[in-house]
Amino acid sequence: MKKLLPLLFIVISANSFAQTDSTFIRKIYDEALEQGESHKNLRSLCKDIGARITGSAEAQMAIKWGEKLLKSYNFDTVYLQEIKVPHWERGTTEAAWIENEDGEIIKLDILALGGSVGTNGLISGEVIEVSDLKALKQLTEDDVKGKIVFLSQPFDKKNIQTSKSYGACYPIRGLGTNEAGKLNARAVVIRSLATPEDDFPHTGTMSYDTDVNKIPGAAMSTNNATLLSNWLKKGKVTLKIEMDCKTYPNVTSYNVIAEINGKDDKVITWGGHLDSWDVGEGAHDDGAGIAHSIEALRILKKLGYQPNHKLRCVLFMNEENGNMGGKSYAKIVSEKKEEHICAIESDRGGFLPVGFDVNGTNEHLKMVQSFETLLSSFELYRFRKGFGGVDIGPLKEYYPNMIQLGLAINSQAYFNYHHTHNDVFENVNKRELELGSAAMASMIYLMDKTLE
Amino acid sequence: MKKLLPLLFIVISANSFAQTDSTFIRKIYDEALEQGESHKNLRSLCKDIGARITGSAEAQMAIKWGEKLLKSYNFDTVYLQEIKVPHWERGTTEAAWIENEDGEIIKLDILALGGSVGTNGLISGEVIEVSDLKALKQLTEDDVKGKIVFLSQPFDKKNIQTSKSYGACYPIRGLGTNEAGKLNARAVVIRSLATPEDDFPHTGTMSYDTDVNKIPGAAMSTNNATLLSNWLKKGKVTLKIEMDCKTYPNVTSYNVIAEINGKDDKVITWGGHLDSWDVGEGAHDDGAGIAHSIEALRILKKLGYQPNHKLRCVLFMNEENGNMGGKSYAKIVSEKKEEHICAIESDRGGFLPVGFDVNGTNEHLKMVQSFETLLSSFELYRFRKGFGGVDIGPLKEYYPNMIQLGLAINSQAYFNYHHTHNDVFENVNKRELELGSAAMASMIYLMDKTLE
Repeated sequence: MKKLLPLLFIVISANSFAQTDSTFIRKIYDEALEQGESHKNLRSLCKDIGARITGSAEAQMAIKWGEKLLKSYNFDTVYLQEIKVPHWERGTTEAAWIENEDGEIIKLDILALGGSVGTNGLISGEVIEVSDLKALKQLTEDDVKGKIVFLSQPFDKKNIQTSKSYGACYPIRGLGTNEAGKLNARAVVIRSLATPEDDFPHTGTMSYDTDVNKIPGAAMSTNNATLLSNWLKKGKVTLKIEMDCKTYPNVTSYNVIAEINGKDDKVITWGGHLDSWDVGEGAHDDGAGIAHSIEALRILKKLGYQPNHKLRCVLFMNEENGNMGGKSYAKIVSEKKEEHICAIESDRGGFLPVGFDVNGTNEHLKMVQSFETLLSSFELYRFRKGFGGVDIGPLKEYYPNMIQLGLAINSQAYFNYHHTHNDVFENVNKRELELGSAAMASMIYLMDKTLE
Repeated sequence: MKKLLPLLFIVISANSFAQTDSTFIRKIYDEALEQGESHKNLRSLCKDIGARITGSAEAQMAIKWGEKLLKSYNFDTVYLQEIKVPHWERGTTEAAWIENEDGEIIKLDILALGGSVGTNGLISGEVIEVSDLKALKQLTEDDVKGKIVFLSQPFDKKNIQTSKSYGACYPIRGLGTNEAGKLNARAVVIRSLATPEDDFPHTGTMSYDTDVNKIPGAAMSTNNATLLSNWLKKGKVTLKIEMDCKTYPNVTSYNVIAEINGKDDKVITWGGHLDSWDVGEGAHDDGAGIAHSIEALRILKKLGYQPNHKLRCVLFMNEENGNMGGKSYAKIVSEKKEEHICAIESDRGGFLPVGFDVNGTNEHLKMVQSFETLLSSFELYRFRKGFGGVDIGPLKEYYPNMIQLGLAINSQAYFNYHHTHNDVFENVNKRELELGSAAMASMIYLMDKTLE
């Protein structure tokens, strides 16, 4: 694939978009807003299946759910793609308390980080607050041995995009426990990676190096983190924590795939991830992306669109804690010598869509920006270089010249819900979800018509 | 004023925006997001004052609230502007039931329309469904006399902007009761002007011609409206309704005004409306606009900005049912021979700001579009011709060459909350509110620097 030049993909100039494109995109939006099924499908995924962490019974049921739903739409092909995935369970015990020198005790709102080892009973340690991962790396074993490391980095409120704040804090969650384990800390607790000050802890993935001392890691609510910082300013604080989460052997799972055949076998693929964390309902993360992705294919079929290329919707498994769905998909399709020319992902929630981020060449960006005239009538304005998505990311290794796009979504409220008990169906607005589906379908249509 | 040409207002070209502008706008956003007071102020307005319909005790308290808050910020001037306003009260009884030919009875979720007469006890009538105001105007007295007219026009889901759907349905609420009264109908009930299908009735203003037969008008929830339509497809339906709402004599009230003096006395004014309907907390409509408007002035003062022109924040009274605040303001300032060069309004909720609508000349539009380079970093993209706002609208009669701007806000969820019991503080996202405040302050700053 590497010999293909990006420019080969671009054959139609901005000026050639016809009235027919405008009319067709209007039909896509009409279908999504008047006869849309994305909201109904999201309700079913959230309520009939629920939270669906990789390896769980719910994840298995979600695969059946996706397969049955896709088959009901009579696409040309619906099939499961077998993959191996990790299997971690939260267990039944998860509790923590802080105690100050006056003997005051407060129970914390916590969630074990995904992948953490358990505590093997109630453990206790003096809390040491560390501002971020960089500060932790400057400490020695003498500083933290036997203590509970509290990583308290908050979101930088000044960032307009909340995802930028999330990215900056990611190291305390993803890497902090591993680093503190190297210094023989007893456990790690972090301030949740969250925008608001409230009582919801936010879980999320973390990992250990192979040969490291594995210690437990958990997230507390932002309100609890502020309280703990305030207590620590006044004196010594002890934290007690018990969690019986555990990693089990890898299991077999599946990506769920549906296709409409095109005039050739070049593939335009898109998707979201079918797994979620094990709390809430995975409504915004990433039930919305699943609903968007299925609906985009449904709409194109309903409108009788005859694609130039193979249109493939993928419900990826295991984005949250391993990305084995995305990695395996890329490996499998490249081994089959399939030619992938474009991939699009929706994994930023079911809020208002605002445009697309382009992971590609300057020519790719110009191509996408040339769509703005068509798409601004539908309130899509933001077309700039950026991230495509975690699930589609691994394809870039095998298809370096492909264009990848991420559906850009209003990010202001995303990290209020992300990875919490509060990520439920009721917090998704029907019209915003429908507009996301229509945006996906429109971009797939434009890519199919534009890319050779 | 009429002799001024629009072009006189434009003295700085797009190319002249300096790094200092970019830096200053960044400071505005930092202040709004890190040290912002708009969310705290909105909470106080919603919880300490509550719903505040014109003429009510709550409206009086809201005026005191606004005056005290503005004085606390030590602006150059804070004062009340006396006006006369209408006074309508919902009363204590408000209930309706429908009964079909099988004797099935269901209670409806209703709200009297603002300005409606009461029913003077429980009244009853056969329901006649009429699709919209145009269809009503084609009926004769024989068709509707003694009946209860049910105006069932739904929102057109295909409109991307929900305000367009609202505008299309506005006649059934604003004018329907008056039209049906001319035909001696007994009462009017309407499908709420609302996006979702749910159980919240939406009130809103209506009016009678002076010499018309005044009959009662009420809105029911969209779920109830769908149910009623379904019942009517099967047979005769009787509706019983009682409401003791009433209009009282006009009373004295006030616009609340705060200013920072400029190098000259030309006025740049902006605001939202302090009154709300008498249900919910008026959080999005228009507590958000009040919070935005106050915060914009607070931020500019906090940053030590020395304006070229007089900067005036107005908390308008009585937008909802009479617009006497806006009309009186325009009359008073024009009589004082004040020169108004720009007015900006925030009255579309506390959701994500997306840009500004320009009510002005093509040159005004070009000027505002020239700001896009500066503002797109803050996710403001939409700069096009459109509506400024109800409160600032009357100024155009006296200052036809002025530019008016409306803060454009993501409209998808606005008509879920608008004029309902559900328009409460908890449904406003803190960051989206803060971004609205920063957008207002930035536009005021740019206007002050650009307009001569």
